[in-house]
Amino acid sequence: MGNFKGHALPGSFFLLFGLWWSVKYPLKYLCRKKKNTSLLGSKAGFQRLEFTEGIFKAAFALIGMIAEQFVPDGPHLKLYNYEKKQWDHLMNWQHMTMYLFYGISGLVDIVAHSTNVLPVAMDRMVLSLAVFVEGFLLHYHIHERAMLDLHVHQLLLVAIFGAAICIFLETFFRGIIVLEMLRTSLCILQGSWFWQIGFVLYPPSGSPEWNQMDHNNMMFLTMCYCWHYAFAILIMGLHTSLVNWVIRSKMKQAPTMEIGLLKMTERDQESEDEI
Amino acid sequence: MGNFKGHALPGSFFLLFGLWWSVKYPLKYLCRKKKNTSLLGSKAGFQRLEFTEGIFKAAFALIGMIAEQFVPDGPHLKLYNYEKKQWDHLMNWQHMTMYLFYGISGLVDIVAHSTNVLPVAMDRMVLSLAVFVEGFLLHYHIHERAMLDLHVHQLLLVAIFGAAICIFLETFFRGIIVLEMLRTSLCILQGSWFWQIGFVLYPPSGSPEWNQMDHNNMMFLTMCYCWHYAFAILIMGLHTSLVNWVIRSKMKQAPTMEIGLLKMTERDQESEDEI
Amino acid sequence: MGNFKGHALPGSFFLLFGLWWSVKYPLKYLCRKKKNTSLLGSKAGFQRLEFTEGIFKAAFALIGMIAEQFVPDGPHLKLYNYEKKQWDHLMNWQHMTMYLFYGISGLVDIVAHSTNVLPVAMDRMVLSLAVFVEGFLLHYHIHERAMLDLHVHQLLLVAIFGAAICIFLETFFRGIIVLEMLRTSLCILQGSWFWQIGFVLYPPSGSPEWNQMDHNNMMFLTMCYCWHYAFAILIMGLHTSLVNWVIRSKMKQAPTMEIGLLKMTERDQESEDEI
Amino acid sequence: MGNFKGHALPGSFFLLFGLWWSVKYPLKYLCRKKKNTSLLGSKAGFQRLEFTEGIFKAAFALIGMIAEQFVPDGPHLKLYNYEKKQWDHLMNWQHMTMYLFYGISGLVDIVAHSTNVLPVAMDRMVLSLAVFVEGFLLHYHIHERAMLDLHVHQLLLVAIFGAAICIFLETFFRGIIVLEMLRTSLCILQGSWFWQIGFVLYPPSGSPEWNQMDHNNMMFLTMCYCWHYAFAILIMGLHTSLVNWVIRSKMKQAPTMEIGLLKMTERDQESEDEI
Repeated sequence: MGNFKGHALPGSFFLLFGLWWSVKYPLKYLCRKKKNTSLLGSKAGFQRLEFTEGIFKAAFALIGMIAEQFVPDGPHLKLYNYEKKQWDHLMNWQHMTMYLFYGISGLVDIVAHSTNVLPVAMDRMVLSLAVFVEGFLLHYHIHERAMLDLHVHQLLLVAIFGAAICIFLETFFRGIIVLEMLRTSLCILQGSWFWQIGFVLYPPSGSPEWNQMDHNNMMFLTMCYCWHYAFAILIMGLHTSLVNWVIRSKMKQAPTMEIGLLKMTERDQESEDEI
Repeated sequence: MGNFKGHALPGSFFLLFGLWWSVKYPLKYLCRKKKNTSLLGSKAGFQRLEFTEGIFKAAFALIGMIAEQFVPDGPHLKLYNYEKKQWDHLMNWQHMTMYLFYGISGLVDIVAHSTNVLPVAMDRMVLSLAVFVEGFLLHYHIHERAMLDLHVHQLLLVAIFGAAICIFLETFFRGIIVLEMLRTSLCILQGSWFWQIGFVLYPPSGSPEWNQMDHNNMMFLTMCYCWHYAFAILIMGLHTSLVNWVIRSKMKQAPTMEIGLLKMTERDQESEDEI
Repeated sequence: MGNFKGHALPGSFFLLFGLWWSVKYPLKYLCRKKKNTSLLGSKAGFQRLEFTEGIFKAAFALIGMIAEQFVPDGPHLKLYNYEKKQWDHLMNWQHMTMYLFYGISGLVDIVAHSTNVLPVAMDRMVLSLAVFVEGFLLHYHIHERAMLDLHVHQLLLVAIFGAAICIFLETFFRGIIVLEMLRTSLCILQGSWFWQIGFVLYPPSGSPEWNQMDHNNMMFLTMCYCWHYAFAILIMGLHTSLVNWVIRSKMKQAPTMEIGLLKMTERDQESEDEI
Repeated sequence: MGNFKGHALPGSFFLLFGLWWSVKYPLKYLCRKKKNTSLLGSKAGFQRLEFTEGIFKAAFALIGMIAEQFVPDGPHLKLYNYEKKQWDHLMNWQHMTMYLFYGISGLVDIVAHSTNVLPVAMDRMVLSLAVFVEGFLLHYHIHERAMLDLHVHQLLLVAIFGAAICIFLETFFRGIIVLEMLRTSLCILQGSWFWQIGFVLYPPSGSPEWNQMDHNNMMFLTMCYCWHYAFAILIMGLHTSLVNWVIRSKMKQAPTMEIGLLKMTERDQESEDEI
């Protein structure tokens, strides 16, 4: 859907996931570090969480696929127009394919975290493939666009392929907080940039159109992209401090264990440093 | 051989190997996980399997080389035409070179898994080289083709170079199921895409030609490529469930050991999670 | 600031850091190897050092940001010129964004090495991002320049992206001396090349202008870039020998422990070799 | 030196090193595997070998540098022609710079394997840099050449950058035989391809010139490049079998230890397989 909503929908999905991850991963890291199991319970509880995430991912993908097919000007499952002898609504079909792979990723998450047929690492591998396919299709379907349109989508590709590489690395280095945070930041960036693209290409009624051929606009948007990223880092910083503050105040309410734990934490830190 | 058969032959080889791997690797993974040695016996038995695979690979490569040389319009080992003062049938010679490297890879498999002169990791390294050489030659010999012809071969290159990188990683991270499955999926993709290329460039008599210059055809084929991949994932999912079902029913017939094994399996799962 | 000072300022920052690192890392390596703790004290002392580095990094970034904004011909925080209906001083704003990310990297260093909220590896990850963002912005803002101008900046990009990859690897392989030295060399190279760019594009008054279109100039500067790198390696070699000599003479003053230590060193060497 | 000798000289250096490595690494691998220390003695002996290699590398680099400077039509250390106001013999200076970095690599080898100031891994890192610099300079100085000339040098770049990546990986995964063999094969390929370039661009008197614009010549040379590589693999295979045969016959002469050793070998194989 080449319109504002077609960019706002995936943008919102990515933002939701990104913001949730920016709370989840610091929480997991700090709980593990402080040996606090009251908030993010046992390993089993965490596996349930991943399972639920998979369901949400699959649901979002399904919503996206249905939206792309059955919007008023959508293809309604028709792929080939036999009268005009040409393909019909290829744009929507391509977007649907992108959602399809996120759907597959959601299903693999569900299977990998509820049965033991698939290895756990498979969830990251398939997510990495889904992100790669998104980038791959996007790369080919922004051919022959106007300069500014092309540019904002190319910037998006940086976030997409960056995320694909990051998630691929996670297949091998699972549970490393720096990679998880990198993925989170790129996911927030992708989400907020989808919204930005929507505003640039389909400005809300009343505001002026962007000049597609002005080189200055390109330079401004490149910089703007970096500011989005700085903003994503800021949000993650805030969430991390918040989570840290919550865990600390929770631990103060159980002060008998605290002194012993703090010592262990320090030793932990040292040993991590060593590595 | 720039014709339908010239694409169907390698396509069939890749499909055969891909489908076989999509059974072999889940079987190996699940047997190891469930400590079941009845199906995929001992380590020695597995090494024999790799040895047999090497023989098949070398045989397929030999068939391919002979076919490229001795088809009616082939070079029949003649490389230079001294009358016309130009190279003769370079296309066939290039294809033969691709098969040649797969042949070398087969020979290395045979030596590495039957003697102990070569390290085992060498089989993956040489296979990676063979896949890379295939992509390398293909990259240079699709120069100056029509747009659609170029495009479908470029899509093929994505699968080829993806597989080369994946197999190169396997040299270092041997026996990791997610990489083996990735390789399998890319191998199936390559095989089915070779068939697709055959149908697009040399449509069976009766059906209409594809318009080489229509941008919509390009966009459709890009998407079609992703569907091929989704299909490859679907097949692998089916095979994995099938293998899982077979192993389970086999284990039910030997129920005395089951209870103890299930506990071990759970502990296994945990420890893998930890990593 | 498209002038000499605008290149000399970041060049000096990079040179300062590079030269400091070319002393710090050999010192750290040789002290650890010779079990000498008198010079680079305990682990806690080393953490204080990283903390101080973070403060300097943040301070340099702040200086850079202020300079870009408030030089006489700077934007003075004005981003959009409503009269001319165009963006104002985008160049300066882009440079400021580059400094901004180094500032974020400095802040993360400070937090990671003074509290235990962030994992230590986060400092390298964010530094890698900062370097990447520098390269990313530079890549887009050297569009449509004269040939020589473009070329010297492209050479700079090699050092920048090389450093970004190197630092990204350090996130996983922390404290490996060869990566630290590689980063150091690329940092010195970047610093000295910034100065070189300044001299090439804004030659000091009196000396002749460089012909922007002469292919020979391009070839000379490419080679010159390699010489800068050879020079960086030379400096690092000198600093390493100097540090080695200082540590040796310090150890001679405490000779009672020396004999035992030397034996341990040799064994150390062997075991490292093994790896 | 844009002539036949200018390509034959580095080609010979690379071939010499490649052929020597194709004996050394199988020997090292098989000796270690069969616990045979009679041929490639102790670790100290091996370190002496690396030291000697460094001396040869530095010597070859020096020869190359002197040759580039003082051939009859060389620059004789003159860089700038003040009369014509242009750079003088930049080609030779660039080639000299390539040799310079190999010289640095040789020096680092010597220092790293004779003292313990530098970590051993540094030899690979600097060699990787030297190979990268060779490719980097070559990449920029083949601009604006005729099609075939450009093409044969681009093929060379594949071997060069492949080797640079391979050696960079060796910095982290030291002593892994598959990487060492890959490096060896790329080194032989580079050497023999340098000779091939010499014959293509400067055909010996009497034989016809190659048509620089014939697309068929390009396709043939691409394939020819792969044959060179297949040939390199063949040579390495032969050398490995030869080395294996020599070690076996040596061990037969000391039969009392053999039975026990063979058992150990088998267990070795198994444990390697496991990894």
